[in-house]
Amino acid sequence: MSKPSLPKGTRDFGPADMAKRNYIFGTIKTVFEKYGFMPLETPAMESLQTLTGKYGEEGDQLIFKLLNNGDFLAKSDKEAIAAGDSKKASFSISKKALRYDLTVPFARFVVMNRSEIAMPFKRYQIQPVWRGDRPGKGRYQEFYQCDADVVGSDSLLNEADLVRIFDEVLDSLKLDGVVIKLNNRKILSGLAQWIGKEDDLTNLTISIDKLDKVGVEGVEKELTNRGFTEAEIDKVKKFLSVNGSIEDKLNWISESLNSEEAKKGVEEVREIIEKVNLTGLRAAELELDLTLARGLNYYTGAIFEVIVKDSGMGSICGGGRYDDLTGIFGWQGVSGVGISFGAERIMDIMNERELFPSDTAITTQVMFVNFGAEEEKYCVKLAAELRDKGIKTEVYPEAAKMKKQMTYANAKNISCVVMAGSNEIAIGEVRLKNMKTSQEYPISSPFINLAGSINQLLAE
Amino acid sequence: MSKPSLPKGTRDFGPADMAKRNYIFGTIKTVFEKYGFMPLETPAMESLQTLTGKYGEEGDQLIFKLLNNGDFLAKSDKEAIAAGDSKKASFSISKKALRYDLTVPFARFVVMNRSEIAMPFKRYQIQPVWRGDRPGKGRYQEFYQCDADVVGSDSLLNEADLVRIFDEVLDSLKLDGVVIKLNNRKILSGLAQWIGKEDDLTNLTISIDKLDKVGVEGVEKELTNRGFTEAEIDKVKKFLSVNGSIEDKLNWISESLNSEEAKKGVEEVREIIEKVNLTGLRAAELELDLTLARGLNYYTGAIFEVIVKDSGMGSICGGGRYDDLTGIFGWQGVSGVGISFGAERIMDIMNERELFPSDTAITTQVMFVNFGAEEEKYCVKLAAELRDKGIKTEVYPEAAKMKKQMTYANAKNISCVVMAGSNEIAIGEVRLKNMKTSQEYPISSPFINLAGSINQLLAE
Repeated sequence: MSKPSLPKGTRDFGPADMAKRNYIFGTIKTVFEKYGFMPLETPAMESLQTLTGKYGEEGDQLIFKLLNNGDFLAKSDKEAIAAGDSKKASFSISKKALRYDLTVPFARFVVMNRSEIAMPFKRYQIQPVWRGDRPGKGRYQEFYQCDADVVGSDSLLNEADLVRIFDEVLDSLKLDGVVIKLNNRKILSGLAQWIGKEDDLTNLTISIDKLDKVGVEGVEKELTNRGFTEAEIDKVKKFLSVNGSIEDKLNWISESLNSEEAKKGVEEVREIIEKVNLTGLRAAELELDLTLARGLNYYTGAIFEVIVKDSGMGSICGGGRYDDLTGIFGWQGVSGVGISFGAERIMDIMNERELFPSDTAITTQVMFVNFGAEEEKYCVKLAAELRDKGIKTEVYPEAAKMKKQMTYANAKNISCVVMAGSNEIAIGEVRLKNMKTSQEYPISSPFINLAGSINQLLAE
Repeated sequence: MSKPSLPKGTRDFGPADMAKRNYIFGTIKTVFEKYGFMPLETPAMESLQTLTGKYGEEGDQLIFKLLNNGDFLAKSDKEAIAAGDSKKASFSISKKALRYDLTVPFARFVVMNRSEIAMPFKRYQIQPVWRGDRPGKGRYQEFYQCDADVVGSDSLLNEADLVRIFDEVLDSLKLDGVVIKLNNRKILSGLAQWIGKEDDLTNLTISIDKLDKVGVEGVEKELTNRGFTEAEIDKVKKFLSVNGSIEDKLNWISESLNSEEAKKGVEEVREIIEKVNLTGLRAAELELDLTLARGLNYYTGAIFEVIVKDSGMGSICGGGRYDDLTGIFGWQGVSGVGISFGAERIMDIMNERELFPSDTAITTQVMFVNFGAEEEKYCVKLAAELRDKGIKTEVYPEAAKMKKQMTYANAKNISCVVMAGSNEIAIGEVRLKNMKTSQEYPISSPFINLAGSINQLLAE
């Protein structure tokens, strides 16, 4: 028999990792709910036609398709198979696929339930997604996304609230050096107008989006390859080099770009910042980054990205406004804005900086040593008392050697061990051992006193 | 554009359903952890070879296979495809599949991590599984399982704890009429010995397992079809008709079956019941049901099933001991015992009996009416104060008509609405509306007093 293994790019989450993940998800959930977002879960499987055509050519190839059950060959496209056309053939043998993100299933949900949903609809969703990317360091085929979106409201108060959520979540997780980068797609549209490339916004944003990775020369090269002239590129470079305060940057755009679209973007940025400043932020810096582009085509207004300084990590969160998300399912003109937390990267930084509180771990709090059948009976009764008081308790199930039982308690990181041998039971007491300090205390009348002593010890 | 839809047998979980499910899962998790079980999550995708051959011929056909990404036809078994052999062909175009249950991934995890796991290993796992069953009422292609298992311990204290967990979870959920049915596979083996059909235990248990659905005549027919003689069937019928108290039944078996295996089963039943009785149960009845067989082949000791009287529903939980779970992955002789809660059926019964507490719902607690840009600024600041005190708060994002805003608050089941118009703000107060009673109160110095008034109103 071959040794069992996991598919590449997937992971098990044992108790320690689960505890950490629950800590991050729990923090995110609490903040989402504080701002009026409500939970949604959609199935892992979606109809293939719900997903295809939504993520571009490249994305489509990374969607995991499910093979039809039963005799799938009977209805297969035999011509395509004979021709070796995998792509065409796949649609004849697969009707379902695994979700690729949480945004498209959310849009599908909104359209399917439009008559019952109270607008504006604020939902959050924390679920895994699947992508057939080549697995690598920090890149998985199954990973969680944590999204919050509002649809059916144009108000920029939503953008401001989402900025506050970034700040509150990351501050609650004790992450230092958080910078929330803000930009607006309308400013980028204005740039495209200014250089006379209105019809080429996609190529422009894709190129600018790479600035972080390839530098100005890289962007220059990219734009040249995509057919931009030297004069056009000079304007882009001018735009990318604008610096100074937020006001300086906004003024430069209003004056230089001479574009109504850009002016609208500038106004939106001003309004969002003004609304954020009403309460201020706890710890994060809010920065206007004109070079922030975000690859995704559907953004039309504000765009966000969050980084952590000195983490050596790219963006840990992102988001933006899209004016027509549900249009892909036939319902036009529903505007929305959403954000997403990158749980994997947040977990990596928190691990590196040791930011997880030690009491995050989920484990047994008290173990009773098992001395034999008669003593076990006494311990089972006493353990039930502790559980009734909410204490996580187990009785070691066999009268194994003491060393084995204590090794188990240590391996499981159990704080308290209770010993009730026949002598102790005879005089109506038990011994309580603090596993951190190795100190032992006798506890008399344990049915009355033990829970209290344990709670005291756990609180230390 | 075609209207979007969900694949058959799958469901979305909106806020109300999520709240109910979280309530059930939360209760189960709390009790699992109280007994020392720790969380595990495994990936949705497993290697196809991890799953195939584990669920019998029938089960194998219901496994959802994932089509290999990219040019899958290049490496396909062209002969099998030409021959129309879907089953054979599938293995050449699919390497991964969706998990079918939580038990096999758990066994895989244990074997892969055997050197790091402290035995006995107690884990729980609450995750969806996927099966290509024909969808129907209460039967889904994606559904949650909630499992707890102990491996690496033969002690029957584990069985007793699992019975206590059934009782405690279902009592916490306020389910009345819970019966925990207990039997032992060794008793069924003894029955097979007694009738001289030791090698035919599988056929025997499969037939007996159908008693609930088809009655004694049905079982008789089934056994005849499976090649049992009249004399053999008479003995089975005698066995199935044994009644009386638990002691009566156990005595009959010890005396009549004349089988060492059966006697061992009887002893185990006695010991489990004795260990359960040390603490007693909160509400459930514990019953010895000699006709309980459980279809799954891997059970070797105690078997459990839980029903709710007058629910018109089959079993809502199940479980049992298996002496060689990890053997399928090459690690022999690791005994384990586990249980599983059927969350869907529990949810159905609780819905029918209206057992969900009204405060389960996850929703905004306070909404600020939006009267315009200036008032909004004041509300945003006040809302931040409430959120800092943990109150779920939103400011309606636009100055829409009052009626629209109140309709939204009602649709979202928001308890409190705060109105701060320019007049109120000018005199330093706001109006708080209790949405249940429609009463309105003025609150002066709201930055100091509002949170307290709201908490009072929420606690009513």
